[in-house]
Amino acid sequence: MLDAMTLAADLTIADVRAAHDRIRPHIRRTPVLSSEYLNELTGARLFFKCENLQEAGAFKVRGACNAVFGLNEDVARRGVATHSSGNHALSLSYAAGRRGIPCNVVMPRTAPQAKKDAVRRYGGIVTECEPSTSSREAVFAQVQQATGGEFVHPYNDPRVIAGQGTCSLELLEQTDGLDAVVAPIGGGGMISGTCLTLSNLAPEVAIYAAEPEQADDAFRSFRAGHIIADDAPETVADGLKVPLKNNTWHFVSNFVTDIQTASEKEIVEAMKLTWKYLRVVMEPSSAVPLATILKNPDTYRGKRVGVIITGGNVDLDRLPWTLV
Amino acid sequence: MLDAMTLAADLTIADVRAAHDRIRPHIRRTPVLSSEYLNELTGARLFFKCENLQEAGAFKVRGACNAVFGLNEDVARRGVATHSSGNHALSLSYAAGRRGIPCNVVMPRTAPQAKKDAVRRYGGIVTECEPSTSSREAVFAQVQQATGGEFVHPYNDPRVIAGQGTCSLELLEQTDGLDAVVAPIGGGGMISGTCLTLSNLAPEVAIYAAEPEQADDAFRSFRAGHIIADDAPETVADGLKVPLKNNTWHFVSNFVTDIQTASEKEIVEAMKLTWKYLRVVMEPSSAVPLATILKNPDTYRGKRVGVIITGGNVDLDRLPWTLV
Repeated sequence: MLDAMTLAADLTIADVRAAHDRIRPHIRRTPVLSSEYLNELTGARLFFKCENLQEAGAFKVRGACNAVFGLNEDVARRGVATHSSGNHALSLSYAAGRRGIPCNVVMPRTAPQAKKDAVRRYGGIVTECEPSTSSREAVFAQVQQATGGEFVHPYNDPRVIAGQGTCSLELLEQTDGLDAVVAPIGGGGMISGTCLTLSNLAPEVAIYAAEPEQADDAFRSFRAGHIIADDAPETVADGLKVPLKNNTWHFVSNFVTDIQTASEKEIVEAMKLTWKYLRVVMEPSSAVPLATILKNPDTYRGKRVGVIITGGNVDLDRLPWTLV
Repeated sequence: MLDAMTLAADLTIADVRAAHDRIRPHIRRTPVLSSEYLNELTGARLFFKCENLQEAGAFKVRGACNAVFGLNEDVARRGVATHSSGNHALSLSYAAGRRGIPCNVVMPRTAPQAKKDAVRRYGGIVTECEPSTSSREAVFAQVQQATGGEFVHPYNDPRVIAGQGTCSLELLEQTDGLDAVVAPIGGGGMISGTCLTLSNLAPEVAIYAAEPEQADDAFRSFRAGHIIADDAPETVADGLKVPLKNNTWHFVSNFVTDIQTASEKEIVEAMKLTWKYLRVVMEPSSAVPLATILKNPDTYRGKRVGVIITGGNVDLDRLPWTLV
């Protein structure tokens, strides 16, 4: 059985399959959508795995449910706790609510209102911090000491990584062969789960991570060969501001083909394109893959490309193209 | 074989099945989505059939493809022509483009830019008219005389009605029993197709039509027992301004359980709720069913309800909740 101390290198595809069995009653098998228009625009065949269509609006319910439903009764009784820019916070609240246990979360005060509202709707208890990694970790230490809940890290936790790996498991089943998969990278949880699944089941598939230029710590880490962490980057892709940690670095450094970046303007344009032609509501972080695909046509032309749409929790009153 | 002269009363479920076989290569089997939050809010189990996720962004590709691909070679060569507030125009252009024949459409100059753009992207030729039924029919007569294309009426055409019936065919297959189906009503094409399919295959399912209060000609017709047509109603639900005609009246008067209406404010609120919790991009017309469900909880509480999301072609720069 996995616990928070399991090493990334010890995770296996059996952990992903066990996670899938454990979380299946609590998550959706999200649809894979496509757009002939976006295919023409990119010269590739794009298969969008729509994790924004999860009930809680993000792929993070996979990892959160795997962690919460894998706890033994004694630990579960004390509840869970985390810090998160939003989607992990609301996903952990969702999972804890379904198990009927308490959930404490520390969120930056600048997190989108839609994400704070969702945490509270699912019964999570929010403590706010400043929008920096250092503040969030300091405030979290206080909260966890006060509550004693099991810490479920938003991405560095092996239970979470195994849970996120279930997304690519479904994507492989739902598509008839892929040449590449592109997913956004922040802390690296989705990318790590993707690497765990694909390196075992479809090692021929190239894995690209997509990152905002303005929060390109993973890009720089990948090139430097060691983790570089920024404390408080600023980008419209609010889910991607956090740095890599040891477990996600294991997957990024060993299995990722390349990391590509996009500007704020390119991210917002890609977001609007997806809303218009795919007709799904997704958040800026989820648009970074299409932005990097449009920016690097030679990488993807003629290929069958899986694209993970990671989340859809966005303030409808503050859409980025209306804020210029 | 159906033609434009077939009477509504002579349409059979075999026509719907033949339409489904004919159009299958050109349309998507759209997913059925749900939201636990919207279920709690309404007290019903809602199954949203997402026709906004068609490539052309609307259910109207079903009827348009059935009409276009059912034409014999001689007729097809002269192309097709229609008048439409938007989604039929772009769907007919899409269908004609796939068959490689010309398509002329007359659209009100006030139609959403997104819809005009889509018509042109698919190769349709647009002639603009004033935003009234009388102007649109007059301008269309000139265009058709000049081009000689086969007229495919946006909803009163039996080939179109049989095509729209394929949506409920899929909905029945995708859900495990329904108590009711709710769809928006403008000219009545979707409702007629729904009636055609359900009255044959699932006559126990109640059929509700949802209409804007500010364009409630179908509501008043239903109560009066004969067609009442307004010339130029004004509503945010731009797809629902047109009046019933003889073929759609046949289905509305014989098979619809009731017609319910919603105010402009209620429609916009329901639209925003769906964007937020179902996370799909849909146009105001598609929000009218959720608005009427929220307004008439006693009709739907405890029921399993299919809801047709008819289209997703909306100007992202002019979202109705940002225009107050």
